[in-house]
Amino acid sequence: MIRIGIIGATGYAGAELVRILHGHKDAEIVWYGSRSYVDEKYASIYRNMFELVEDECLGDNMAEMAERVDVIFTATPQGYLAGILTEEILEKVKIIDLSADYRIKDVSVYEKWYGIEHKSPQFIDEAVYGLCEINRDKVKNARLVANPGCYTTCSILTAYPLVKEGIIDPNTLIVDAKSGTSGAGRGAKVPNLFCEVNESIKAYGVASHRHTPEIEEQLGYACGGDVVISFTPHLVPMNRGILATEYAALTRKVTAEEIKVVYDKYYGEETFVRVLPMGNVPETRWVEGSNYVDIGFKIDERTNRIVMIGAIDNLVKGAAGQAVQNMNIMFGLPENMGLDMVPLFP
Amino acid sequence: MIRIGIIGATGYAGAELVRILHGHKDAEIVWYGSRSYVDEKYASIYRNMFELVEDECLGDNMAEMAERVDVIFTATPQGYLAGILTEEILEKVKIIDLSADYRIKDVSVYEKWYGIEHKSPQFIDEAVYGLCEINRDKVKNARLVANPGCYTTCSILTAYPLVKEGIIDPNTLIVDAKSGTSGAGRGAKVPNLFCEVNESIKAYGVASHRHTPEIEEQLGYACGGDVVISFTPHLVPMNRGILATEYAALTRKVTAEEIKVVYDKYYGEETFVRVLPMGNVPETRWVEGSNYVDIGFKIDERTNRIVMIGAIDNLVKGAAGQAVQNMNIMFGLPENMGLDMVPLFP
Amino acid sequence: MIRIGIIGATGYAGAELVRILHGHKDAEIVWYGSRSYVDEKYASIYRNMFELVEDECLGDNMAEMAERVDVIFTATPQGYLAGILTEEILEKVKIIDLSADYRIKDVSVYEKWYGIEHKSPQFIDEAVYGLCEINRDKVKNARLVANPGCYTTCSILTAYPLVKEGIIDPNTLIVDAKSGTSGAGRGAKVPNLFCEVNESIKAYGVASHRHTPEIEEQLGYACGGDVVISFTPHLVPMNRGILATEYAALTRKVTAEEIKVVYDKYYGEETFVRVLPMGNVPETRWVEGSNYVDIGFKIDERTNRIVMIGAIDNLVKGAAGQAVQNMNIMFGLPENMGLDMVPLFP
Amino acid sequence: MIRIGIIGATGYAGAELVRILHGHKDAEIVWYGSRSYVDEKYASIYRNMFELVEDECLGDNMAEMAERVDVIFTATPQGYLAGILTEEILEKVKIIDLSADYRIKDVSVYEKWYGIEHKSPQFIDEAVYGLCEINRDKVKNARLVANPGCYTTCSILTAYPLVKEGIIDPNTLIVDAKSGTSGAGRGAKVPNLFCEVNESIKAYGVASHRHTPEIEEQLGYACGGDVVISFTPHLVPMNRGILATEYAALTRKVTAEEIKVVYDKYYGEETFVRVLPMGNVPETRWVEGSNYVDIGFKIDERTNRIVMIGAIDNLVKGAAGQAVQNMNIMFGLPENMGLDMVPLFP
Repeated sequence: MIRIGIIGATGYAGAELVRILHGHKDAEIVWYGSRSYVDEKYASIYRNMFELVEDECLGDNMAEMAERVDVIFTATPQGYLAGILTEEILEKVKIIDLSADYRIKDVSVYEKWYGIEHKSPQFIDEAVYGLCEINRDKVKNARLVANPGCYTTCSILTAYPLVKEGIIDPNTLIVDAKSGTSGAGRGAKVPNLFCEVNESIKAYGVASHRHTPEIEEQLGYACGGDVVISFTPHLVPMNRGILATEYAALTRKVTAEEIKVVYDKYYGEETFVRVLPMGNVPETRWVEGSNYVDIGFKIDERTNRIVMIGAIDNLVKGAAGQAVQNMNIMFGLPENMGLDMVPLFP
Repeated sequence: MIRIGIIGATGYAGAELVRILHGHKDAEIVWYGSRSYVDEKYASIYRNMFELVEDECLGDNMAEMAERVDVIFTATPQGYLAGILTEEILEKVKIIDLSADYRIKDVSVYEKWYGIEHKSPQFIDEAVYGLCEINRDKVKNARLVANPGCYTTCSILTAYPLVKEGIIDPNTLIVDAKSGTSGAGRGAKVPNLFCEVNESIKAYGVASHRHTPEIEEQLGYACGGDVVISFTPHLVPMNRGILATEYAALTRKVTAEEIKVVYDKYYGEETFVRVLPMGNVPETRWVEGSNYVDIGFKIDERTNRIVMIGAIDNLVKGAAGQAVQNMNIMFGLPENMGLDMVPLFP
Repeated sequence: MIRIGIIGATGYAGAELVRILHGHKDAEIVWYGSRSYVDEKYASIYRNMFELVEDECLGDNMAEMAERVDVIFTATPQGYLAGILTEEILEKVKIIDLSADYRIKDVSVYEKWYGIEHKSPQFIDEAVYGLCEINRDKVKNARLVANPGCYTTCSILTAYPLVKEGIIDPNTLIVDAKSGTSGAGRGAKVPNLFCEVNESIKAYGVASHRHTPEIEEQLGYACGGDVVISFTPHLVPMNRGILATEYAALTRKVTAEEIKVVYDKYYGEETFVRVLPMGNVPETRWVEGSNYVDIGFKIDERTNRIVMIGAIDNLVKGAAGQAVQNMNIMFGLPENMGLDMVPLFP
Repeated sequence: MIRIGIIGATGYAGAELVRILHGHKDAEIVWYGSRSYVDEKYASIYRNMFELVEDECLGDNMAEMAERVDVIFTATPQGYLAGILTEEILEKVKIIDLSADYRIKDVSVYEKWYGIEHKSPQFIDEAVYGLCEINRDKVKNARLVANPGCYTTCSILTAYPLVKEGIIDPNTLIVDAKSGTSGAGRGAKVPNLFCEVNESIKAYGVASHRHTPEIEEQLGYACGGDVVISFTPHLVPMNRGILATEYAALTRKVTAEEIKVVYDKYYGEETFVRVLPMGNVPETRWVEGSNYVDIGFKIDERTNRIVMIGAIDNLVKGAAGQAVQNMNIMFGLPENMGLDMVPLFP
């Protein structure tokens, strides 16, 4: 039985870890870390867990936690983990970090986009970017996994095979992404109030969102060169879900059948990536509550572009689900253990 | 392995049966019955099931189905099952009926409220009203279970202990219920369009909703007399969830602590009924996707009334979940098998 | 041209005053008071007003405001106006208070339900309860109008004629009310975040909501006796709208036609009360954005109760619209001036 | 007083015409045409109009209507008007067509994208494309105005000044558009049910949506050449609003200030186009219920692209509002008459 500690267990991503891990046979949460709710019953904050979780929230003392658990999930603000991580801790526990602290290999890029100094750059090299379908082998032996961002997971997986195979020009890539509001977190802010979000849609972080360099770096590895893309996130009046609509120029004449073959080559054996039948487009409702990525595409012969579309649940494959998938890989468990949630519809 | 047939597998309740049974270890759906989509892949209609269900929809030939399955779930319009059920079928398979056909013992009451003739009243006596927490023992040996309505499940369970113990006067009971829109079904009707439901709330079926006599009959058994109540359902702009706010006059001076003791007496051992800590009120979000009933209450000393509140997911405990719970009881399985879904929030 | 000052212009009720008064021919806002946004452009906070309002927000100096305006609207927290109101101010300007400070005549009732000391009880007697359809004559000459609460406006107007005529027993009245989320205000609080409200419904303030004594007092005037009722508000995932479902015992045998005659007697000439054709039930979508109250009813012969239903837009007839209606009355203008907004659907 | 007839008065666009024209001082609807609801009271279908509209619905006899009105609005399916329009009718009344029948000058393009034969191509030349801000002069004397589509109005106005001035390369233009669900109309279809739309987002009509050639044609006029673009619409769980996020390559180095100057040059005097302060991005909530187009932009120096964003209410500026604006121009009235609706928020 894997003993688990969560720092940030009372945010939305933390709560989703709790929901998922509750159904995991070989894992047990022994530390519900929450700075805001120390000594309160976890189930008094997330009442869906009433009678399911009896524990009280503990603080976020990582050194102590490291003594008592096998793996720590950090669902914390940017900079938090980088500020407290030590070699001593890493020698005791594995860490799966849901923040961005170790996602970007070039520390100057991190510091520029996030606007903060990185306090422990010495661990960046070692950290493995936990996009399971692509970096599975590296995750296996990692001590420190940088769990990908929600937008990036969806954006990268949707474009990856075509970039890798040179079928699209990655520098023409435009990612127009739409997210449910749980992606904005549980902080009490006016822009996230019901009446501010409901009955509206908006773009934000235009040409400046922090997930941009993360997508560029990973797609750069795929094509073996520098990649610069346009990325625009939007806020949608729904709880969960990310839809990424991605546009790119084709580098050569291809048929839809050929594209389908390429996607199937990369994802045909993947449990959590569903390449839809040709002509189908993903919708977030079909993946809600599950760890699936649904992918579809359409060639636009008039413009010689392809439109690729991906859909995930931002809290599952975009955060907690992928984190558990990484844990399973790190501990040698079946990758889908505890992750067989069927999408909830309606 | 229990072999299952579903008639009406492509309605919302049917689809929820599919979702739940997919995770049931001792049951397997072998017949996805759907009049509208014969020969179409089930997963092409409910794409959440893509790569999870490979079957195509079959028709609704009950005689043939009875040869191939151990239990049939009928998620069909009122009158359908009553029109085709025969002794021959019942000798071959167990039936769990999600419609109202066998819920009401007095056929004249059924015919009055539903406005249709009952075609097989000979089975009414035998049918067991499948409110598991109350009729568990009778369900065990039933051939035909009348699965309770969504509003009724919530309304009855919320008031039952206090009616049974004589703490409230059942004839003062007023049930003001609110339901998510999945309760209206998947039929293509203008009043259920997104723009008609969104940003609005309305009552419907005022003083005439068909779940009224069902509540009255069951509470009548509890108190050993006739019960006449007010019941008003409302349509809420959300997918899932029923909240029942119930008002009744107290028959004597009681404290909140005493009321809590009564609720705990009836439900303390129940897996799926969660009596909330005193002072907490149920909210539908805390039960979404799960088979739980959350119950809370408040004594109003000024009016000598008690306000009881119950919350369920109308598609789970209000339909498919309770149906599976009944199946488990009928087949001697642990009652919660396949029903351990943690509520999904947010 | 009436010069207007608003204290609390950047809350939802204040913003609705701005929207409505923008279209009022004989009134002009000259003071946009907002403690949080002093010196910021009003239209930078409420961008719907971009290019429509050029003013910046001012503070909340009531003495200074009183020199420059003819009427002050206070859309402020409870206790605020009571803490600063003076005879000197009242001699200079008329005040329409959207808070509860002067709604309740018995100061001990106010202090008990609101849990604060009333700092200027000397003005309570003089204050007129601004429920226009009932107190129109008193409003005409008032210096200080207590604008009714949102729930109370809807609850009282829906039951008033039947209470007044003795057709229902007011002490059997149960008001089950449902409100859109704008009623919770624009404060940054976790329970009002999109993901906390969306896809859920809950009751709150059960048997303790502050609008209860306000309803009881006014209905007490109607029947000439003490009235004690049950009132339960609910939060609905929509922006605007209140639906009040009200249950009461009939005092005698009446027909629906007789009830309709009574409603028409009281409201037949009222611009803003629409008694629906028999058989129709109000829905909040049909009044959204307008100053209408829609009222319907259904007699339940089985229980000898009547179900009365009322619907308003909580920000218009439940707050800003009624405040402007009061202003029109106080200044001798046509009562509907600036209030001819057609309900917005969908 | 202009006498108005509407064909299709009971669809969402038709109902919005009724809402807007109700507040128009110089116009009066004398014919509420609706094939589905002949002889029913209009206000029994759209109950927001209860006590505001007393008329019953009439049929869609255009010849008879032409005798009794000065202008006909056709809010009808594609091909309907083209199938019945005659010179005789056009000699009697002006027509503002909200369908696509006369928007596209090249009949073969129309027939290809719409998949139907055009039955009266002889009127295409004469028809004026009613994008008021661009074609105002031509509209003045038109007998037949082709009212632009909702997506096209937003997409074109957002990009127009930069295309016209040669600042962006129109053939690099990618329009990713998001619409509220009222754009899907009031037809009873499963995909538009509340539970199918709520809590989801999807693309549709990828690389094949009919508004594409309309945008291309108009931007082609602006740049004086052929334009081929990518256009992808998405369905968003909200009632109203279109947001268009548009990406294009800059043809030269420009500053944000220069771009702002260009937008102001074209729109500075326009009542209904609001160019937002630099740094602000449009959100649909700020235009809901109004005839405004809000426009913002951001230069992305990393990619040498500009992101332009526009927001409208699809039923107002995207349909009924613009139609009334065209009517005002055609009849020599102030262009904003009856269109001074302040955006409704929240």
